[in-house]
Amino acid sequence: MKAVGIVGVGLIGGSFALAIRRAGFAGRIIGVSSPGTIRAARARGVIDQAMPLEQAAAVSDLLYLAQPIERILETLAVIDAHVRPGTLITDAGSTKLAIVQRASTAIRRGRFVGGHPMAGKESRGVEEAEADLFRDRPYVLTSRESELEAWIERIGARIVLLDAAEHDRLVALTSHLPQLVSTALAAQIGADPEAAKVTGPAALDLTRLAMSPYEIWRDIFSTNASSIDAALAAFIARLEGLRAGLRSPQMQREFGKAAEAARSLRR
Amino acid sequence: MKAVGIVGVGLIGGSFALAIRRAGFAGRIIGVSSPGTIRAARARGVIDQAMPLEQAAAVSDLLYLAQPIERILETLAVIDAHVRPGTLITDAGSTKLAIVQRASTAIRRGRFVGGHPMAGKESRGVEEAEADLFRDRPYVLTSRESELEAWIERIGARIVLLDAAEHDRLVALTSHLPQLVSTALAAQIGADPEAAKVTGPAALDLTRLAMSPYEIWRDIFSTNASSIDAALAAFIARLEGLRAGLRSPQMQREFGKAAEAARSLRR
Repeated sequence: MKAVGIVGVGLIGGSFALAIRRAGFAGRIIGVSSPGTIRAARARGVIDQAMPLEQAAAVSDLLYLAQPIERILETLAVIDAHVRPGTLITDAGSTKLAIVQRASTAIRRGRFVGGHPMAGKESRGVEEAEADLFRDRPYVLTSRESELEAWIERIGARIVLLDAAEHDRLVALTSHLPQLVSTALAAQIGADPEAAKVTGPAALDLTRLAMSPYEIWRDIFSTNASSIDAALAAFIARLEGLRAGLRSPQMQREFGKAAEAARSLRR
Repeated sequence: MKAVGIVGVGLIGGSFALAIRRAGFAGRIIGVSSPGTIRAARARGVIDQAMPLEQAAAVSDLLYLAQPIERILETLAVIDAHVRPGTLITDAGSTKLAIVQRASTAIRRGRFVGGHPMAGKESRGVEEAEADLFRDRPYVLTSRESELEAWIERIGARIVLLDAAEHDRLVALTSHLPQLVSTALAAQIGADPEAAKVTGPAALDLTRLAMSPYEIWRDIFSTNASSIDAALAAFIARLEGLRAGLRSPQMQREFGKAAEAARSLRR
């Protein structure tokens, strides 16, 4: 692998560039992004040079699409004509089914593998990129590809193989549902002008995610609506159950199960 | 004020003792607790001596009830006969209406002021007590009492005056609802054996509270069920709204409101 093209040099794309560089990648790292981002990425030494998309596609051995989901879908629709046969193309989008389906029809000369690094930070942008962002984090791939897997292992992430639909069902539960719950909770607390007087660590913990910018979420909701709807429906039913059993002995069991689940997520 | 009796020398009672001592209280600090807790409290220098409840009540100028809620209710029912007239009695229970109502009939010789320091930690027990626990935290009082207020200010907490019913309504929203949401989310994620594969920071953030022991919560639920029920009902309605509008432009407004609310809680 001599040249890697990072399409969308933000937090994730920039971190992937820094991570493979530190893990020993000695070739060229090419950035495709807006002029302001390219300037920042060069200033930080994240990329070696910048190119327009078509040109980067033509010279890269690996194209890493780290754009918003709808932009990834657009890129997939146009990129195949420009890549050399066999070029490896992967993405870092937060939902996988729409992307893998688009790639299955649009990518013929290249080889596509859907990806989702389960990493992030509160702040975005290449200024926040770091070589360690993926370390010890799950990195979902929708199919096997030995060269890509080798790099993901070198940057310290844990590969999780999942088909796209199963991925989307699971992240609806572990990521999209928590976001909506945090948003709803912050909005509800915010609607009571007196509530801020008695806000303690619990409310702060649970409303931190609510500060996520909507721009990230629009595409997630539009490409994973049915899984999110199912996760929300199940969650609402569970809350109705707690509501009905508030003073009943079943609460103790529910707390026990939840505490065990929370501890197990941390192991 | 020459003697302070701490009834229940755990995290909160122990921290109050350490805090007033550091803030200049030069009198005796008497602990009322189980033998094991008394040993630990003395070893850490949290209390000067231990007494049975009745004896502590008879010699204290301030009785600080830092037990579980149901125990506070029991203590209030028996303590008044033992205190000297005018003894100040306060508590640190997480709900206020049941406690203030009990005190209004049971406390005649003493003077009762309901209290709720909005502070805590993940770990409990006098071993975790610290003089700084209340610093910069809200400390709710259900009525004015100048001597108590002066000590609360000296330990660095922010006094918030609220009547008991209003307190209970607000903490249902800012504390009890977040707990139930975290419990329900952890239980739902835990019920899917595959979910742990793709657990990222969002799920960890929102399930931390789910590790709280049920023993604390039983009394909160039994003494604040109607406010919690109302908060849950409103939250469920809000989630149904998000669910219905998942792909609609109203989501952007909902995210904007929630993000602003979350930021405002942090100011």
